[in-house]
Amino acid sequence: MTRRTAASRVLDVLGAFGPDHRALSLSEIARRAELSLSTTHRLVGELLSWGGLERGADGRFSVGLRLLELSALAPRGLGLREVAFPHLDDLHRATGGNVHLGVRDGHEVVYVEALRSRGTAQVSSRVGDRWPLHATGTGLVLLAHADPGDVDDVLARPLARYTARTSTDPEALRRHLARVRRDGVAVLRGQITDDAMAVAVPVRDRTGEVTAALSLVVRDDEAGPGGLPALLTAVAARIRRSLTAGPTAMGAGAAVRPVERALRVG
Amino acid sequence: MTRRTAASRVLDVLGAFGPDHRALSLSEIARRAELSLSTTHRLVGELLSWGGLERGADGRFSVGLRLLELSALAPRGLGLREVAFPHLDDLHRATGGNVHLGVRDGHEVVYVEALRSRGTAQVSSRVGDRWPLHATGTGLVLLAHADPGDVDDVLARPLARYTARTSTDPEALRRHLARVRRDGVAVLRGQITDDAMAVAVPVRDRTGEVTAALSLVVRDDEAGPGGLPALLTAVAARIRRSLTAGPTAMGAGAAVRPVERALRVG
Repeated sequence: MTRRTAASRVLDVLGAFGPDHRALSLSEIARRAELSLSTTHRLVGELLSWGGLERGADGRFSVGLRLLELSALAPRGLGLREVAFPHLDDLHRATGGNVHLGVRDGHEVVYVEALRSRGTAQVSSRVGDRWPLHATGTGLVLLAHADPGDVDDVLARPLARYTARTSTDPEALRRHLARVRRDGVAVLRGQITDDAMAVAVPVRDRTGEVTAALSLVVRDDEAGPGGLPALLTAVAARIRRSLTAGPTAMGAGAAVRPVERALRVG
Repeated sequence: MTRRTAASRVLDVLGAFGPDHRALSLSEIARRAELSLSTTHRLVGELLSWGGLERGADGRFSVGLRLLELSALAPRGLGLREVAFPHLDDLHRATGGNVHLGVRDGHEVVYVEALRSRGTAQVSSRVGDRWPLHATGTGLVLLAHADPGDVDDVLARPLARYTARTSTDPEALRRHLARVRRDGVAVLRGQITDDAMAVAVPVRDRTGEVTAALSLVVRDDEAGPGGLPALLTAVAARIRRSLTAGPTAMGAGAAVRPVERALRVG
Protein backbone atom coordinates (compact mmCIF):
# COMPACT_ATOMS: atom_id res chain seq x y z
CA MET A 1 0.00 0.00 0.00
CA THR A 2 2.59 2.57 1.05
CA ARG A 3 6.14 2.43 -0.29
CA ARG A 4 7.87 0.43 2.39
CA THR A 5 10.73 -2.02 2.34
CA ALA A 6 10.04 -5.67 3.10
CA ALA A 7 12.05 -5.36 6.29
CA SER A 8 10.04 -2.40 7.50
CA ARG A 9 6.80 -4.25 6.82
CA VAL A 10 7.67 -7.08 9.19
CA LEU A 11 8.54 -4.49 11.83
CA ASP A 12 5.19 -2.81 11.17
CA VAL A 13 3.47 -6.12 11.89
CA LEU A 14 5.19 -6.19 15.29
CA GLY A 15 4.37 -2.53 15.77
CA ALA A 16 0.67 -3.32 15.38
CA PHE A 17 0.75 -4.65 18.94
CA GLY A 18 0.48 -2.24 21.84
CA PRO A 19 -0.70 -1.97 25.46
CA ASP A 20 -4.29 -1.69 24.28
CA HIS A 21 -3.80 -4.20 21.42
CA ARG A 22 -2.19 -7.28 22.92
CA ALA A 23 -4.16 -9.92 21.01
CA LEU A 24 -5.04 -9.25 17.39
CA SER A 25 -6.69 -11.16 14.56
CA LEU A 26 -5.01 -11.31 11.16
CA SER A 27 -7.33 -8.65 9.78
CA GLU A 28 -6.73 -6.40 12.78
CA ILE A 29 -2.98 -6.70 12.25
CA ALA A 30 -3.43 -5.94 8.54
CA ARG A 31 -5.49 -2.85 9.29
CA ARG A 32 -3.19 -1.53 12.01
CA ALA A 33 -0.01 -2.21 9.97
CA GLU A 34 -1.63 -0.88 6.78
CA LEU A 35 -0.79 -4.03 4.86
CA SER A 36 -2.81 -6.27 2.58
CA LEU A 37 -4.27 -9.42 4.10
CA SER A 38 -2.08 -11.67 1.95
CA THR A 39 1.11 -9.82 2.90
CA THR A 40 0.07 -9.86 6.53
CA HIS A 41 -0.63 -13.57 6.35
CA ARG A 42 2.83 -14.27 4.97
CA LEU A 43 4.66 -12.02 7.44
CA VAL A 44 2.71 -13.34 10.43
CA GLY A 45 3.68 -16.85 9.30
CA GLU A 46 7.34 -15.88 9.30
CA LEU A 47 7.04 -14.29 12.72
CA LEU A 48 5.23 -17.35 14.10
CA SER A 49 7.95 -19.73 12.99
CA TRP A 50 10.61 -17.38 14.34
CA GLY A 51 8.83 -17.10 17.69
CA GLY A 52 8.14 -13.38 17.58
CA LEU A 53 4.40 -14.02 17.58
CA GLU A 54 2.27 -16.74 19.15
CA ARG A 55 -1.20 -17.91 18.19
CA GLY A 56 -3.67 -18.35 21.02
CA ALA A 57 -6.42 -20.92 21.42
CA ASP A 58 -8.87 -18.32 20.12
CA GLY A 59 -6.86 -17.93 16.91
CA ARG A 60 -5.67 -14.43 17.75
CA PHE A 61 -2.00 -13.50 17.70
CA SER A 62 0.12 -12.01 20.43
CA VAL A 63 3.77 -11.22 21.10
CA GLY A 64 5.88 -14.36 21.55
CA LEU A 65 8.60 -15.46 23.90
CA ARG A 66 11.38 -14.89 21.39
CA LEU A 67 11.00 -11.18 21.96
CA LEU A 68 11.25 -11.66 25.71
CA GLU A 69 14.48 -13.53 25.11
CA LEU A 70 15.83 -10.78 22.86
CA SER A 71 14.81 -7.99 25.19
CA ALA A 72 16.77 -9.69 27.95
CA LEU A 73 19.89 -8.87 25.89
CA ALA A 74 19.27 -5.12 25.79
CA PRO A 75 22.08 -3.51 27.79
CA ARG A 76 19.76 -0.66 28.76
CA GLY A 77 16.85 -3.07 29.28
CA LEU A 78 16.73 -6.31 31.17
CA GLY A 79 20.53 -6.38 31.33
CA LEU A 80 20.59 -3.22 33.45
CA ARG A 81 17.60 -4.54 35.38
CA GLU A 82 19.53 -7.72 36.17
CA VAL A 83 22.33 -5.84 37.90
CA ALA A 84 20.08 -3.34 39.63
CA PHE A 85 17.35 -5.74 40.78
CA PRO A 86 18.68 -6.78 44.21
CA HIS A 87 19.12 -3.12 45.15
CA LEU A 88 15.69 -2.17 43.85
CA ASP A 89 14.24 -5.08 45.79
CA ASP A 90 15.94 -3.84 48.96
CA LEU A 91 14.43 -0.38 48.44
CA HIS A 92 11.03 -1.91 47.73
CA ARG A 93 11.18 -3.93 50.93
CA ALA A 94 12.47 -1.06 53.04
CA THR A 95 9.83 1.43 51.94
CA GLY A 96 6.83 -0.51 50.63
CA GLY A 97 6.64 2.04 47.81
CA ASN A 98 6.60 1.49 44.07
CA VAL A 99 10.12 1.40 42.67
CA HIS A 100 10.96 2.35 39.08
CA LEU A 101 14.18 2.20 37.11
CA GLY A 102 13.98 4.18 33.88
CA VAL A 103 16.17 5.09 30.94
CA ARG A 104 15.67 7.85 28.42
CA ASP A 105 14.55 7.07 24.89
CA GLY A 106 14.20 10.32 22.96
CA HIS A 107 11.42 12.37 24.51
CA GLU A 108 10.30 9.67 26.89
CA VAL A 109 11.41 7.56 29.82
CA VAL A 110 11.06 3.79 29.48
CA TYR A 111 10.77 1.69 32.62
CA VAL A 112 13.19 -1.22 32.66
CA GLU A 113 11.94 -2.25 36.07
CA ALA A 114 8.80 -1.48 38.03
CA LEU A 115 8.23 -3.13 41.40
CA ARG A 116 4.76 -2.71 42.79
CA SER A 117 3.40 -3.55 46.18
CA ARG A 118 0.29 -5.65 46.52
CA GLY A 119 -1.25 -2.87 48.57
CA THR A 120 -0.81 -0.22 45.91
CA ALA A 121 -2.51 -1.79 42.92
CA GLN A 122 -4.27 1.49 42.20
CA VAL A 123 -0.88 3.10 41.61
CA SER A 124 0.45 0.97 38.83
CA SER A 125 3.24 0.95 36.27
CA ARG A 126 4.93 -1.68 34.19
CA VAL A 127 8.18 -2.72 32.59
CA GLY A 128 8.25 -1.32 29.08
CA ASP A 129 5.96 1.58 29.92
CA ARG A 130 6.78 4.94 28.37
CA TRP A 131 6.10 8.24 30.07
CA PRO A 132 6.83 11.86 29.19
CA LEU A 133 9.99 13.22 30.77
CA HIS A 134 8.52 16.38 32.28
CA ALA A 135 5.88 14.75 34.49
CA THR A 136 7.73 11.81 36.02
CA GLY A 137 10.45 11.65 38.65
CA THR A 138 12.69 9.42 36.54
CA GLY A 139 12.01 11.54 33.45
CA LEU A 140 12.85 14.82 35.15
CA VAL A 141 16.13 13.42 36.47
CA LEU A 142 17.07 12.12 33.02
CA LEU A 143 16.13 15.43 31.41
CA ALA A 144 18.15 17.34 34.02
CA HIS A 145 21.22 15.48 32.80
CA ALA A 146 20.46 15.57 29.07
CA ASP A 147 22.22 17.72 26.49
CA PRO A 148 20.89 21.31 26.43
CA GLY A 149 19.69 20.80 22.85
CA ASP A 150 17.63 17.78 23.92
CA VAL A 151 16.13 19.81 26.78
CA ASP A 152 15.13 22.55 24.31
CA ASP A 153 13.53 19.92 22.05
CA VAL A 154 11.53 18.36 24.85
CA LEU A 155 10.32 21.66 26.27
CA ALA A 156 9.35 22.96 22.82
CA ARG A 157 6.87 20.11 22.37
CA PRO A 158 3.36 19.98 23.82
CA LEU A 159 3.63 18.98 27.50
CA ALA A 160 0.86 16.69 28.69
CA ARG A 161 -1.14 17.58 31.80
CA TYR A 162 -2.31 14.78 34.13
CA THR A 163 -3.54 16.67 37.18
CA ALA A 164 -4.08 20.30 38.16
CA ARG A 165 -0.56 20.21 39.64
CA THR A 166 1.27 18.87 36.55
CA SER A 167 3.98 21.36 35.68
CA THR A 168 3.76 22.23 31.98
CA ASP A 169 5.37 25.67 31.91
CA PRO A 170 8.76 25.42 30.14
CA GLU A 171 10.40 28.13 32.23
CA ALA A 172 9.20 26.64 35.52
CA LEU A 173 10.43 23.26 34.30
CA ARG A 174 13.87 24.72 33.48
CA ARG A 175 14.10 26.07 37.03
CA HIS A 176 13.06 22.68 38.35
CA LEU A 177 15.73 20.96 36.23
CA ALA A 178 18.38 23.31 37.66
CA ARG A 179 17.25 22.41 41.20
CA VAL A 180 17.42 18.70 40.33
CA ARG A 181 21.00 19.12 39.11
CA ARG A 182 21.93 21.14 42.19
CA ASP A 183 20.26 18.87 44.76
CA GLY A 184 20.85 15.53 43.03
CA VAL A 185 17.23 14.59 43.55
CA ALA A 186 13.82 15.32 42.04
CA VAL A 187 10.74 15.46 44.24
CA LEU A 188 7.40 15.55 42.40
CA ARG A 189 4.08 15.76 44.16
CA GLY A 190 0.77 15.19 42.44
CA GLN A 191 2.21 15.53 38.94
CA ILE A 192 0.51 12.42 37.55
CA THR A 193 -1.66 11.19 40.41
CA ASP A 194 -3.03 13.63 42.96
CA ASP A 195 -2.01 11.85 46.13
CA ALA A 196 1.35 10.44 45.03
CA MET A 197 4.86 11.70 45.64
CA ALA A 198 7.78 10.61 43.49
CA VAL A 199 11.39 10.91 44.68
CA ALA A 200 13.98 10.26 41.97
CA VAL A 201 17.76 10.26 41.70
CA PRO A 202 20.26 9.67 38.89
CA VAL A 203 22.05 6.35 38.44
CA ARG A 204 25.54 6.81 37.04
CA ASP A 205 27.68 4.32 35.21
CA ARG A 206 31.37 3.69 35.75
CA THR A 207 32.31 6.80 33.75
CA GLY A 208 30.06 9.04 35.83
CA GLU A 209 27.48 9.48 33.08
CA VAL A 210 23.82 9.44 34.09
CA THR A 211 22.42 6.46 32.23
CA ALA A 212 19.31 5.70 34.26
CA ALA A 213 17.09 7.14 36.95
CA LEU A 214 15.70 5.49 40.04
CA SER A 215 12.41 6.57 41.56
CA LEU A 216 10.27 5.69 44.50
CA VAL A 217 6.57 6.53 44.45
CA VAL A 218 4.75 6.68 47.75
CA ARG A 219 1.46 8.04 48.90
CA ASP A 220 1.84 11.77 49.54
CA ASP A 221 0.91 12.30 53.16
CA GLU A 222 2.00 15.96 53.04
CA ALA A 223 4.95 15.17 55.33
CA GLY A 224 7.43 15.65 52.49
CA PRO A 225 10.18 13.32 51.34
CA GLY A 226 11.99 13.16 54.72
CA GLY A 227 14.91 10.75 54.51
CA LEU A 228 13.91 9.30 51.14
CA PRO A 229 16.35 11.38 49.01
CA ALA A 230 19.29 10.16 51.11
CA LEU A 231 18.04 6.57 50.96
CA LEU A 232 17.62 6.66 47.19
CA THR A 233 21.02 8.28 46.73
CA ALA A 234 22.59 5.44 48.72
CA VAL A 235 20.76 2.82 46.62
CA ALA A 236 21.85 4.53 43.38
CA ALA A 237 25.45 4.47 44.61
CA ARG A 238 25.14 0.73 45.28
CA ILE A 239 23.77 0.15 41.79
CA ARG A 240 26.70 2.10 40.37
CA ARG A 241 29.15 -0.05 42.33
CA SER A 242 27.45 -3.22 41.08
CA LEU A 243 27.59 -1.90 37.52
CA THR A 244 31.27 -1.15 37.90
CA ALA A 245 32.27 -4.27 39.77
CA GLY A 246 29.69 -6.74 38.51
CA PRO A 247 29.74 -9.12 35.61
CA THR A 248 27.43 -6.92 33.55
CA ALA A 249 28.23 -3.57 32.00
CA MET A 250 25.64 -0.96 31.23
CA GLY A 251 24.96 1.78 28.72
CA ALA A 252 23.99 1.43 25.09
CA GLY A 253 26.38 -0.81 23.27
CA ALA A 254 28.58 -1.54 26.23
CA ALA A 255 30.02 -5.02 26.16
CA VAL A 256 28.26 -7.18 28.70
CA ARG A 257 29.99 -10.24 30.04
CA PRO A 258 27.47 -13.03 30.30
CA VAL A 259 26.82 -14.51 33.70
CA GLU A 260 28.43 -17.91 33.96
CA ARG A 261 25.81 -20.15 32.33
CA ALA A 262 27.10 -23.34 33.87
CA LEU A 263 26.22 -22.24 37.36
CA ARG A 264 22.57 -21.50 36.77
CA VAL A 265 19.91 -23.70 38.24
CA GLY A 266 16.29 -24.17 37.36
CA MET B 1 23.56 -15.63 0.21
CA THR B 2 20.98 -18.24 1.12
CA ARG B 3 17.46 -18.13 -0.28
CA ARG B 4 15.64 -16.21 2.37
CA THR B 5 12.79 -13.74 2.29
CA ALA B 6 13.45 -10.12 3.13
CA ALA B 7 11.35 -10.48 6.28
CA SER B 8 13.34 -13.45 7.48
CA ARG B 9 16.59 -11.58 6.90
CA VAL B 10 15.64 -8.79 9.28
CA LEU B 11 14.71 -11.41 11.87
CA ASP B 12 18.08 -13.07 11.27
CA VAL B 13 19.78 -9.77 12.09
CA LEU B 14 17.97 -9.74 15.44
CA GLY B 15 18.80 -13.42 15.89
CA ALA B 16 22.50 -12.63 15.59
CA PHE B 17 22.32 -11.34 19.17
CA GLY B 18 22.51 -13.79 22.04
CA PRO B 19 23.60 -14.11 25.67
CA ASP B 20 27.21 -14.38 24.57
CA HIS B 21 26.80 -11.82 21.77
CA ARG B 22 25.15 -8.77 23.27
CA ALA B 23 27.17 -6.10 21.46
CA LEU B 24 28.15 -6.71 17.85
CA SER B 25 29.87 -4.77 15.10
CA LEU B 26 28.29 -4.58 11.64
CA SER B 27 30.63 -7.22 10.30
CA GLU B 28 29.96 -9.52 13.24
CA ILE B 29 26.22 -9.21 12.61
CA ALA B 30 26.77 -9.92 8.91
CA ARG B 31 28.80 -13.02 9.68
CA ARG B 32 26.44 -14.37 12.31
CA ALA B 33 23.32 -13.67 10.21
CA GLU B 34 25.04 -14.95 7.04
CA LEU B 35 24.24 -11.79 5.14
CA SER B 36 26.31 -9.52 2.94
CA LEU B 37 27.73 -6.39 4.53
CA SER B 38 25.60 -4.12 2.36
CA THR B 39 22.38 -5.98 3.19
CA THR B 40 23.33 -5.99 6.87
CA HIS B 41 24.04 -2.26 6.75
CA ARG B 42 20.60 -1.55 5.28
CA LEU B 43 18.72 -3.83 7.68
CA VAL B 44 20.59 -2.54 10.73
CA GLY B 45 19.64 0.98 9.60
CA GLU B 46 15.97 0.01 9.50
CA LEU B 47 16.19 -1.62 12.91
CA LEU B 48 17.97 1.42 14.38
CA SER B 49 15.28 3.81 13.24
CA TRP B 50 12.57 1.44 14.49
CA GLY B 51 14.27 1.14 17.89
CA GLY B 52 14.96 -2.59 17.76
CA LEU B 53 18.70 -1.95 17.85
CA GLU B 54 20.78 0.75 19.51
CA ARG B 55 24.27 1.93 18.67
CA GLY B 56 26.67 2.33 21.58
CA ALA B 57 29.39 4.90 22.08
CA ASP B 58 31.89 2.32 20.82
CA GLY B 59 29.96 1.96 17.54
CA ARG B 60 28.75 -1.54 18.29
CA PHE B 61 25.10 -2.48 18.13
CA SER B 62 22.91 -3.99 20.79
CA VAL B 63 19.25 -4.78 21.34
CA GLY B 64 17.12 -1.66 21.79
CA LEU B 65 14.34 -0.59 24.10
CA ARG B 66 11.63 -1.12 21.49
CA LEU B 67 12.00 -4.85 22.03
CA LEU B 68 11.64 -4.43 25.78
CA GLU B 69 8.43 -2.55 25.12
CA LEU B 70 7.15 -5.25 22.79
CA SER B 71 8.10 -8.08 25.10
CA ALA B 72 6.07 -6.43 27.85
CA LEU B 73 3.01 -7.19 25.70
CA ALA B 74 3.63 -10.95 25.54
CA PRO B 75 0.77 -12.57 27.47
CA ARG B 76 3.07 -15.43 28.46
CA GLY B 77 5.97 -13.06 29.09
CA LEU B 78 6.08 -9.85 31.04
CA GLY B 79 2.27 -9.77 31.14
CA LEU B 80 2.16 -12.95 33.19
CA ARG B 81 5.12 -11.72 35.20
CA GLU B 82 3.23 -8.53 36.01
CA VAL B 83 0.38 -10.41 37.65
CA ALA B 84 2.58 -12.96 39.39
CA PHE B 85 5.31 -10.62 40.64
CA PRO B 86 3.94 -9.62 44.07
CA HIS B 87 3.45 -13.30 44.91
CA LEU B 88 6.90 -14.25 43.64
CA ASP B 89 8.35 -11.40 45.68
CA ASP B 90 6.59 -12.70 48.80
CA LEU B 91 8.08 -16.15 48.19
CA HIS B 92 11.50 -14.65 47.58
CA ARG B 93 11.33 -12.69 50.84
CA ALA B 94 9.98 -15.59 52.86
CA THR B 95 12.61 -18.08 51.74
CA GLY B 96 15.64 -16.15 50.52
CA GLY B 97 15.84 -18.65 47.66
CA ASN B 98 15.95 -18.03 43.93
CA VAL B 99 12.45 -17.86 42.48
CA HIS B 100 11.66 -18.73 38.86
CA LEU B 101 8.48 -18.49 36.84
CA GLY B 102 8.72 -20.42 33.58
CA VAL B 103 6.56 -21.24 30.58
CA ARG B 104 7.08 -23.96 28.00
CA ASP B 105 8.26 -23.11 24.53
CA GLY B 106 8.60 -26.32 22.53
CA HIS B 107 11.34 -28.43 24.08
CA GLU B 108 12.45 -25.80 26.55
CA VAL B 109 11.31 -23.74 29.48
CA VAL B 110 11.71 -19.96 29.24
CA TYR B 111 11.96 -17.93 32.44
CA VAL B 112 9.56 -15.00 32.48
CA GLU B 113 10.77 -14.06 35.93
CA ALA B 114 13.86 -14.89 37.92
CA LEU B 115 14.41 -13.32 41.33
CA ARG B 116 17.86 -13.80 42.76
CA SER B 117 19.18 -13.04 46.17
CA ARG B 118 22.29 -10.98 46.60
CA GLY B 119 23.79 -13.80 48.59
CA THR B 120 23.37 -16.41 45.87
CA ALA B 121 25.21 -14.83 42.97
CA GLN B 122 26.88 -18.14 42.23
CA VAL B 123 23.47 -19.68 41.55
CA SER B 124 22.20 -17.46 38.79
CA SER B 125 19.45 -17.34 36.22
CA ARG B 126 17.81 -14.64 34.19
CA VAL B 127 14.59 -13.54 32.55
CA GLY B 128 14.56 -14.88 29.00
CA ASP B 129 16.81 -17.84 29.84
CA ARG B 130 15.99 -21.15 28.18
CA TRP B 131 16.59 -24.49 29.83
CA PRO B 132 15.83 -28.07 28.84
CA LEU B 133 12.63 -29.43 30.34
CA HIS B 134 14.04 -32.63 31.80
CA ALA B 135 16.68 -31.10 34.07
CA THR B 136 14.84 -28.17 35.64
CA GLY B 137 12.06 -28.02 38.23
CA THR B 138 9.90 -25.72 36.15
CA GLY B 139 10.59 -27.78 33.03
CA LEU B 140 9.70 -31.08 34.63
CA VAL B 141 6.41 -29.68 35.93
CA LEU B 142 5.54 -28.30 32.50
CA LEU B 143 6.47 -31.58 30.84
CA ALA B 144 4.39 -33.53 33.36
CA HIS B 145 1.35 -31.61 32.13
CA ALA B 146 2.18 -31.61 28.42
CA ASP B 147 0.43 -33.69 25.76
CA PRO B 148 1.73 -37.29 25.63
CA GLY B 149 2.99 -36.71 22.10
CA ASP B 150 5.07 -33.75 23.27
CA VAL B 151 6.50 -35.85 26.11
CA ASP B 152 7.51 -38.55 23.60
CA ASP B 153 9.17 -35.90 21.41
CA VAL B 154 11.15 -34.42 24.28
CA LEU B 155 12.29 -37.78 25.64
CA ALA B 156 13.29 -39.00 22.17
CA ARG B 157 15.82 -36.18 21.83
CA PRO B 158 19.30 -36.13 23.35
CA LEU B 159 18.99 -35.21 27.04
CA ALA B 160 21.76 -32.96 28.33
CA ARG B 161 23.69 -33.94 31.43
CA TYR B 162 24.87 -31.23 33.86
CA THR B 163 26.01 -33.21 36.90
CA ALA B 164 26.48 -36.85 37.81
CA ARG B 165 22.94 -36.76 39.22
CA THR B 166 21.19 -35.33 36.14
CA SER B 167 18.47 -37.76 35.16
CA THR B 168 18.74 -38.54 31.44
CA ASP B 169 17.10 -41.97 31.27
CA PRO B 170 13.75 -41.64 29.45
CA GLU B 171 12.03 -44.37 31.45
CA ALA B 172 13.21 -42.96 34.79
CA LEU B 173 12.03 -39.55 33.63
CA ARG B 174 8.58 -40.95 32.73
CA ARG B 175 8.28 -42.36 36.23
CA HIS B 176 9.34 -39.00 37.65
CA LEU B 177 6.73 -37.21 35.52
CA ALA B 178 4.03 -39.55 36.86
CA ARG B 179 5.12 -38.75 40.42
CA VAL B 180 5.01 -35.02 39.65
CA ARG B 181 1.43 -35.37 38.34
CA ARG B 182 0.43 -37.44 41.38
CA ASP B 183 2.08 -35.23 44.02
CA GLY B 184 1.55 -31.86 42.35
CA VAL B 185 5.19 -30.98 42.96
CA ALA B 186 8.60 -31.72 41.48
CA VAL B 187 11.66 -31.95 43.72
CA LEU B 188 15.01 -32.03 41.93
CA ARG B 189 18.29 -32.35 43.75
CA GLY B 190 21.63 -31.75 42.10
CA GLN B 191 20.25 -32.02 38.57
CA ILE B 192 22.01 -28.90 37.28
CA THR B 193 24.15 -27.76 40.20
CA ASP B 194 25.44 -30.27 42.70
CA ASP B 195 24.42 -28.55 45.88
CA ALA B 196 21.10 -27.06 44.76
CA MET B 197 17.56 -28.29 45.30
CA ALA B 198 14.67 -27.12 43.13
CA VAL B 199 11.06 -27.39 44.26
CA ALA B 200 8.50 -26.65 41.53
CA VAL B 201 4.73 -26.61 41.20
CA PRO B 202 2.29 -25.93 38.36
CA VAL B 203 0.54 -22.59 37.95
CA ARG B 204 -2.93 -22.98 36.47
CA ASP B 205 -5.03 -20.42 34.68
CA ARG B 206 -8.74 -19.79 35.18
CA THR B 207 -9.63 -22.82 33.07
CA GLY B 208 -7.43 -25.14 35.15
CA GLU B 209 -4.82 -25.55 32.42
CA VAL B 210 -1.17 -25.57 33.50
CA THR B 211 0.27 -22.55 31.74
CA ALA B 212 3.35 -21.87 33.84
CA ALA B 213 5.51 -23.40 36.53
CA LEU B 214 6.86 -21.83 39.68
CA SER B 215 10.11 -22.98 41.22
CA LEU B 216 12.23 -22.19 44.21
CA VAL B 217 15.91 -23.07 44.20
CA VAL B 218 17.67 -23.33 47.53
CA ARG B 219 20.95 -24.76 48.67
CA ASP B 220 20.50 -28.48 49.23
CA ASP B 221 21.35 -29.10 52.87
CA GLU B 222 20.24 -32.75 52.65
CA ALA B 223 17.25 -31.98 54.88
CA GLY B 224 14.83 -32.35 51.99
CA PRO B 225 12.12 -29.98 50.87
CA GLY B 226 10.26 -29.87 54.23
CA GLY B 227 7.37 -27.41 54.03
CA LEU B 228 8.44 -25.90 50.71
CA PRO B 229 6.02 -27.89 48.50
CA ALA B 230 3.05 -26.69 50.58
CA LEU B 231 4.36 -23.11 50.54
CA LEU B 232 4.82 -23.12 46.76
CA THR B 233 1.42 -24.69 46.21
CA ALA B 234 -0.15 -21.87 48.23
CA VAL B 235 1.74 -19.24 46.24
CA ALA B 236 0.68 -20.86 42.94
CA ALA B 237 -2.93 -20.79 44.10
CA ARG B 238 -2.61 -17.09 44.86
CA ILE B 239 -1.17 -16.44 41.41
CA ARG B 240 -4.10 -18.33 39.90
CA ARG B 241 -6.55 -16.20 41.86
CA SER B 242 -4.82 -13.02 40.70
CA LEU B 243 -4.91 -14.28 37.12
CA THR B 244 -8.60 -14.99 37.40
CA ALA B 245 -9.60 -11.91 39.33
CA GLY B 246 -6.99 -9.45 38.15
CA PRO B 247 -6.97 -7.08 35.24
CA THR B 248 -4.65 -9.26 33.20
CA ALA B 249 -5.42 -12.61 31.60
CA MET B 250 -2.80 -15.20 30.80
CA GLY B 251 -2.09 -17.92 28.30
CA ALA B 252 -0.99 -17.65 24.69
CA GLY B 253 -3.24 -15.34 22.78
CA ALA B 254 -5.58 -14.68 25.66
CA ALA B 255 -7.02 -11.20 25.59
CA VAL B 256 -5.32 -9.08 28.22
CA ARG B 257 -7.10 -6.08 29.58
CA PRO B 258 -4.60 -3.29 30.01
CA VAL B 259 -4.06 -1.93 33.46
CA GLU B 260 -5.73 1.44 33.81
CA ARG B 261 -3.11 3.73 32.32
CA ALA B 262 -4.45 6.88 33.94
CA LEU B 263 -3.61 5.66 37.40
CA ARG B 264 0.06 4.99 36.85
CA VAL B 265 2.64 7.20 38.42
CA GLY B 266 6.29 7.74 37.61
